[in-house]
Amino acid sequence: MIIVMRADLAAESPDLDRVVALARTFPGVTTEVRRIQGATRSVTEVYLLGPTHVVPSTPFEEFESVEKVVRITQRYRFIGRHDAGLEAVGFEYNGVFLSQDTFHVLPGLCAVDTLEHVDRTFAALAALGIITARAGAYKPRSSPYDFQGLGKACLPWVFERAGRHGIKMIAMEVTHEDHIDEIRAALKDTGFATGVMLQVGTRNAQNFELLKAVGAQTELPVLFKRGMGITLEESLNACEYVASGGNRRIVFCLRGVKTHLGDPHRNFVDFAHVPVVKRQTRLPVCVDPSHSVGRRSAGPDGLLDIFHVTCQGVIAGANMVLVDIHPAPDEALCDGPQALRLEELSAFMEDVRIARAAYEARRARLTPR
Amino acid sequence: MIIVMRADLAAESPDLDRVVALARTFPGVTTEVRRIQGATRSVTEVYLLGPTHVVPSTPFEEFESVEKVVRITQRYRFIGRHDAGLEAVGFEYNGVFLSQDTFHVLPGLCAVDTLEHVDRTFAALAALGIITARAGAYKPRSSPYDFQGLGKACLPWVFERAGRHGIKMIAMEVTHEDHIDEIRAALKDTGFATGVMLQVGTRNAQNFELLKAVGAQTELPVLFKRGMGITLEESLNACEYVASGGNRRIVFCLRGVKTHLGDPHRNFVDFAHVPVVKRQTRLPVCVDPSHSVGRRSAGPDGLLDIFHVTCQGVIAGANMVLVDIHPAPDEALCDGPQALRLEELSAFMEDVRIARAAYEARRARLTPR
Amino acid sequence: MIIVMRADLAAESPDLDRVVALARTFPGVTTEVRRIQGATRSVTEVYLLGPTHVVPSTPFEEFESVEKVVRITQRYRFIGRHDAGLEAVGFEYNGVFLSQDTFHVLPGLCAVDTLEHVDRTFAALAALGIITARAGAYKPRSSPYDFQGLGKACLPWVFERAGRHGIKMIAMEVTHEDHIDEIRAALKDTGFATGVMLQVGTRNAQNFELLKAVGAQTELPVLFKRGMGITLEESLNACEYVASGGNRRIVFCLRGVKTHLGDPHRNFVDFAHVPVVKRQTRLPVCVDPSHSVGRRSAGPDGLLDIFHVTCQGVIAGANMVLVDIHPAPDEALCDGPQALRLEELSAFMEDVRIARAAYEARRARLTPR
Amino acid sequence: MIIVMRADLAAESPDLDRVVALARTFPGVTTEVRRIQGATRSVTEVYLLGPTHVVPSTPFEEFESVEKVVRITQRYRFIGRHDAGLEAVGFEYNGVFLSQDTFHVLPGLCAVDTLEHVDRTFAALAALGIITARAGAYKPRSSPYDFQGLGKACLPWVFERAGRHGIKMIAMEVTHEDHIDEIRAALKDTGFATGVMLQVGTRNAQNFELLKAVGAQTELPVLFKRGMGITLEESLNACEYVASGGNRRIVFCLRGVKTHLGDPHRNFVDFAHVPVVKRQTRLPVCVDPSHSVGRRSAGPDGLLDIFHVTCQGVIAGANMVLVDIHPAPDEALCDGPQALRLEELSAFMEDVRIARAAYEARRARLTPR
Repeated sequence: MIIVMRADLAAESPDLDRVVALARTFPGVTTEVRRIQGATRSVTEVYLLGPTHVVPSTPFEEFESVEKVVRITQRYRFIGRHDAGLEAVGFEYNGVFLSQDTFHVLPGLCAVDTLEHVDRTFAALAALGIITARAGAYKPRSSPYDFQGLGKACLPWVFERAGRHGIKMIAMEVTHEDHIDEIRAALKDTGFATGVMLQVGTRNAQNFELLKAVGAQTELPVLFKRGMGITLEESLNACEYVASGGNRRIVFCLRGVKTHLGDPHRNFVDFAHVPVVKRQTRLPVCVDPSHSVGRRSAGPDGLLDIFHVTCQGVIAGANMVLVDIHPAPDEALCDGPQALRLEELSAFMEDVRIARAAYEARRARLTPR
Repeated sequence: MIIVMRADLAAESPDLDRVVALARTFPGVTTEVRRIQGATRSVTEVYLLGPTHVVPSTPFEEFESVEKVVRITQRYRFIGRHDAGLEAVGFEYNGVFLSQDTFHVLPGLCAVDTLEHVDRTFAALAALGIITARAGAYKPRSSPYDFQGLGKACLPWVFERAGRHGIKMIAMEVTHEDHIDEIRAALKDTGFATGVMLQVGTRNAQNFELLKAVGAQTELPVLFKRGMGITLEESLNACEYVASGGNRRIVFCLRGVKTHLGDPHRNFVDFAHVPVVKRQTRLPVCVDPSHSVGRRSAGPDGLLDIFHVTCQGVIAGANMVLVDIHPAPDEALCDGPQALRLEELSAFMEDVRIARAAYEARRARLTPR
Repeated sequence: MIIVMRADLAAESPDLDRVVALARTFPGVTTEVRRIQGATRSVTEVYLLGPTHVVPSTPFEEFESVEKVVRITQRYRFIGRHDAGLEAVGFEYNGVFLSQDTFHVLPGLCAVDTLEHVDRTFAALAALGIITARAGAYKPRSSPYDFQGLGKACLPWVFERAGRHGIKMIAMEVTHEDHIDEIRAALKDTGFATGVMLQVGTRNAQNFELLKAVGAQTELPVLFKRGMGITLEESLNACEYVASGGNRRIVFCLRGVKTHLGDPHRNFVDFAHVPVVKRQTRLPVCVDPSHSVGRRSAGPDGLLDIFHVTCQGVIAGANMVLVDIHPAPDEALCDGPQALRLEELSAFMEDVRIARAAYEARRARLTPR
Repeated sequence: MIIVMRADLAAESPDLDRVVALARTFPGVTTEVRRIQGATRSVTEVYLLGPTHVVPSTPFEEFESVEKVVRITQRYRFIGRHDAGLEAVGFEYNGVFLSQDTFHVLPGLCAVDTLEHVDRTFAALAALGIITARAGAYKPRSSPYDFQGLGKACLPWVFERAGRHGIKMIAMEVTHEDHIDEIRAALKDTGFATGVMLQVGTRNAQNFELLKAVGAQTELPVLFKRGMGITLEESLNACEYVASGGNRRIVFCLRGVKTHLGDPHRNFVDFAHVPVVKRQTRLPVCVDPSHSVGRRSAGPDGLLDIFHVTCQGVIAGANMVLVDIHPAPDEALCDGPQALRLEELSAFMEDVRIARAAYEARRARLTPR
C-alpha cells in the first residue's frame, strides 16, 4: 500500500508525520518514506509494508496532503505502476535527469582497450555535446579464453578522461560485487571526475546475489539488461530484486533475446516491448541496438540496420540508447563487428534526432491543448 | 544469370532480340524476358536459365543496350537481389503501384461478417482517401469448431461495395487453390469492381502446393505472410515457390513469430527484419501490427501498442501496413480484441503519416543533392 | 456428450436404437454412432452433437447396455479422452492393429528414388519380419529447386514391390488432396497389393484444407505429424480437423520441434510428450527419430543418437517408430545424412526390442495380478 | 596439447619427468600434470599450455610410457574429448565414484525446510541403500518475495543427519562464493559427516564469477546445470570456466530448457542431449526430471511423466539422476508440485533400475566378447 502525497510537499510537513504515525498503528505494519526529486516537481510516497490488506484507505485519504492511496500487489512491488496507479517520476544522478519522458544517448566502447581509444571516443562525444557514455572494464565472455576486460586497472584513466571531456555518466558493467567497491573507490580517487551507472548484463539477469549487491547501495544508479532467454515478466521480477534492496534508481534495458527466429541478426530485436515496460513499471527504458543487431549490414536505402532498430526503439518512446562505437572497430578486442565508427556518430545522432522528434510529435497529438 | 537492359528499352529493340538469340546459342540454356513497368521507368531483364555457369558475361556486356550482367545463385533465384546486383523495381496492379519505395495502408475486416460492417468499413476508408483494404472471406482457424469465414458467398457483395467506395485492391487470404478461381470469377462477375491481392497466411507459409497455385497465375498479385515458427530464410525460400511458378508480383509480410519471449504480445514483433528483407529481396515489405500485438493495450503515453509497432515498421521503411479494423470489435467473429475501431482510423493514419515522414527524412539525409 | 455402450454390444441391439431415439428427442441434438473394433473387443459410442449441455445424463445411464455417459468439451472433441473418460481403443487397417498398447516400426525411404532401392529396402524389412514401412513419393522441400519426389509415377511399382515383400502398410506423405486420389487409384490398380497410411507432414500441420481432405475419406488412416513451430495444443487442435471430418483412424507423430536450443540435433527432440499425447488423446503415438536428430553421430558407447532417442520414445510408451533407411545413403536425393544403412536395421530392431521390453516391464509392475 | 601417459604409470616415473622437461624446452610452454584415479586404473596426462602449435608430437611419442599425443583446440580445452582423443576417466569423491560409466540417483529436498523432513527423507534413502542425495539451502527464486532458503543456518543439522543415515554426497546449490566457504566450514565442523557437490543452477550458468569461484577450489566437486535459454555449446563453454580454474571434478546436468514448445511441461525436456554431452566432453551427465517436467501428471499407463522422462535419460546413458522428493509436498516451500512422495521412491528406483538395465543391455550388444 502506497500513500502518494501531494506534489512538492515540504519535507517537514506535519501531515507526512501524521500519515506515518497512523500507518504504524496497524499491527505489523512498517513504513518507508520515499522522496523523488523529479524534473518539474518532487513526489513523496509513504510505503506501508507488512499485512496491509487489512489497512483501510479512507483514514489516509482524509488528509489534506494525501493525493491518493494505491493498493499494490506483490508483483513488481517497487518497480510496478500497479495498474497505472503510480507515476513514473524518474530520478537525477550527477546532473543527468532520467525518466520515462527524457531522452539520452550513451555511445561508447563495449570494452575499454587503450587510453588513446578512450580519449578519442570521449572527445567525439564532447564534440557533439553528448554527456553520457558507455565503457566496459569488466567483460563477461562466453569462453574463458576470450579477452576478459582490463578490469579495475583502467578505471582511473577512464574516469579522468571522461571528466576531462565533460562526460557526466558512464554505463559500466559489473559482474561481481567487488567491482562496485572498485568503481566507487576509483570515482573518489579521481575526485568524482564523472559518474557511473552500474550495468547488470543479460547473463547475470538472474544472478540474484549481484542484483542484491547493486540494490544494497544507493550511491550509483543501475542499468538492468533483460535476460536473453527468459520472459519479460521474469526479467522484471529479477529487476525487482534491485529495487527491493533499496535502490530505486533503475533503468531497464532491452537488448534483444536469443532465438533462431531472429537470424540474420545476432539477437531477436525486442523493442516492441518499450511501451510494455513503460506501462508495467515506473522505470525509464533503454534500448541497445548494437547487441541486438550485432552486425553492420545496411538496407538498400543505405541506412545500417543498427540505425533502423534504434529509430524503432526511439519512435516508440525509448528513453535511452546504448550504442557501441569504436575508433578502430577492426582492432576492438570485443564485439568489433557491431561497433559504429567515430565518424558515423554524427549521422547516427541526427538519425536518432529525427526519430525522437517523430515520437514527440506523435505524443503531442494526444495532449489536449 | 540475368542480363539487365538499359531502362526504358523499347519493347521491339533489336538488341533485346540479339541478346536472347546469343543466349540461346549456349547448350541447354533457355531464356525468359521479364519487363517491369516501374513508377518512373520500365526495366527489361533477360533471365538465362539452365547451365549458365559456363556462359561468359563479356559478349553480353558489349551490347549498347545492356546495362549489366548479374550472376545469380540458386538461393532466392527470382526474388533475390543477388548481392545488390538487382534493383527492386516494384509492380503495378489495378492502378496501385507497389515497390520498396511506395507506401500504402490496408485497413479492413480480418473476417467479413455482415454487409453493413463491410460497407461502413469501406466508407470509413474512403472518407480518408484510402484505396487499399483487407477483407477475410476464407479463415483458417486453429480449431475446426471456430468460425471459418463466409467463404465465396460473400465475395459478390464485398467486391461490389469495395468498388462503390473506390477501393482498388483488397488483400484477401486464400487457403485452397479453388479460392483463387472463386475470387477471379467473382471479380469478373462484378465487372472488376475492385482488385484482389491473394494472401497466403502464416499457417500455409510452407504449403508448397498452395504457393505453386498462386504462383501459377499472374492475374492477381500475392501477399506472402512469413511463417511463424520458421526462420526468415525458410520463409524466403517458400516465397520463392511463388516466384518460380511465374508470378513475380509478390509482397512479403512480417506478422510476428511465435515464442514465449514475446509475451504479453500475441506474437513476437519482428519488424526489425524490414531492412533485412528489403536488402535480400526485390520485394516490397508489409507489416501486420494487429496479428503481432494481438491486443489493445496502450502505453502510459496513451498510444496503443499497435500504433507503436506500426510506427516501428514504418520508420524502418515498410511499404505496406495491414491492420485490422472493425465497426464493432466486440461483435467480431474473429480476432476482435486486436481490431481498431472505425473512429480510431483517422488517428492511426495521422500517426503513421508522422512515422513515414520520419523515414523519408532519414533517407533524404543520405541522398546527395 | 458421448454415451459409451457396454463392450461387445451387438450391432442390432435394441438398447442402441433406444438410446439414439431418446437422444434425438432433445431439441437440436443429432447423433452419430461410432463402432470401434479393438484388439480384444468392440466398443460402441453414441455421439450427441448440438446443444447437449441441457441434456441430462441420468435417463441414459439407466439403460442396461450403457456403460457410462461422458460429457465432452469442445477442445479435442473427437480425439480427446475428456479427463480420462474415454478409452483409447485403437483401430485396425489392412490387418495391422494400432492402439496405445501396440508397437510397430516403420523403416523406409524418406524419398523413393529407384526401383532397386525400394526393392532392397522392402526385402530387408521382410527378412526381419517387418510388415510396416515408410516411403515418400511426394516431397515438400524448403526450396523449389530441390528434388520434389517422383510423385504418382512411382506408386505402381512401390505398391507392387511392397506387396511382393509382404508389407501391409506404408506411411506415405501427401501434400495435396489429389495425391489421396492418386494413391487410392494406384492401390486399386495393383489389386490392393499393400495398404497406405496417409501422412500429413509438419509443414502442413495447419494446412486445414488438406486436413479436411484426409479427414473426409475413411478408407485410409492418417499419420499426423506435429507442427514444428507451434505448441502441442495447437497441433492437437489441427489434428482434430481430421477427426471432425469423419476419419477417426489417426496416429499422432512427434518429430522434434524447431529451436536453436536443440543444436547440434536438427530439431529439438520432443519425445517427452509421448505420455502427454497418450493422456490427452485416444490416438496411438508415433516417434520419428530420423527427422528429430538429422545426423549420424554416435555416443562414446558406439550407439547412434538416432538409436538413443528412439529408445527414449519407446521406453516412454511410443506405439510406432518411423525411421529413415536407405541402401546407399550417400546417393539419397533427400535427407541422406540421417538415414540408417540397410545393414544397420537388424541392430536397430534389436535395440528397439530392448527398449520396448523395458517399457512393458515398467508397466507390468503397476498392474495388479 | 596433451600427452597421455600409459595407464597406471607410477607417480615417480622418470619418463614423466622427462616428458615434462622436454615440454618446457619449448619457448613459452608451461605444463600441468593431471593424475586421475579412475575406477579400474589411473590415468596421467601432461597438459602443455601456451604456444603449442609449434611443438612437434614425434619426440613425445617416442617415450615408452607415452600412450598418445592429443592436439586440443581452444574450445572445451579442459572438459572436451577433442575428437574422441581423450577418455572420460571420471573421478572419485568421498567414496563415491562418478564417470560416464557409473550410475547414481540423488533424491532429496529441493529446499530444506524442517529437521524432521530432512531426517525422514534421508532415512527413506538409507532404507533403499541410497548414499547420494540433494538438499537445497540457498534458493535462487524468480521473485525477491518468495522463500529464499534457510541458508547456512541449516547446514550443521543437514550434514549431521546425512552422516547419520550414511549419505556420502549431497548436491547443494550455491549462488555466491561465500556459500562455498560456509559449506566447507560446516562440513569441517560436523567432522565431515558427509560430502557436498556444489551445484551451480541454471540461472547462474553464465555467472562467470561464481563459476571461477567453484573452479578455484578443488576440495568439492561441481554439478553444473545447463543454462535454460542458451545453446548447449554456450553452456559447455561456461562449464569450461570451472575446469579452467583448476577443478576438473565436474558433472554436467541437463534440466530442460525454456520454450513454449514444451508445454504442458514446465520446461522442454532436453535429455536427447545425453549422448551429445558424453561425446563432446569427458564429463559424467546428470538429468533432472523434476525441474524439466515440473508437475505430477501421469500417462494413461499410470506412470508419472517424471518417471517416463527419467527413464528416457537413463536408457540413453545418463550417469546421475537428480530428483525432488518430499515427505509432504503440499507443505513444501518451493516446487512442491513436482516433488515425489517418500512412499513413491521405491517404485521410482525400481523403474529407474529397469531403464538402467536396458541401457546396459543395449551397450553390451556392441561389446565384442
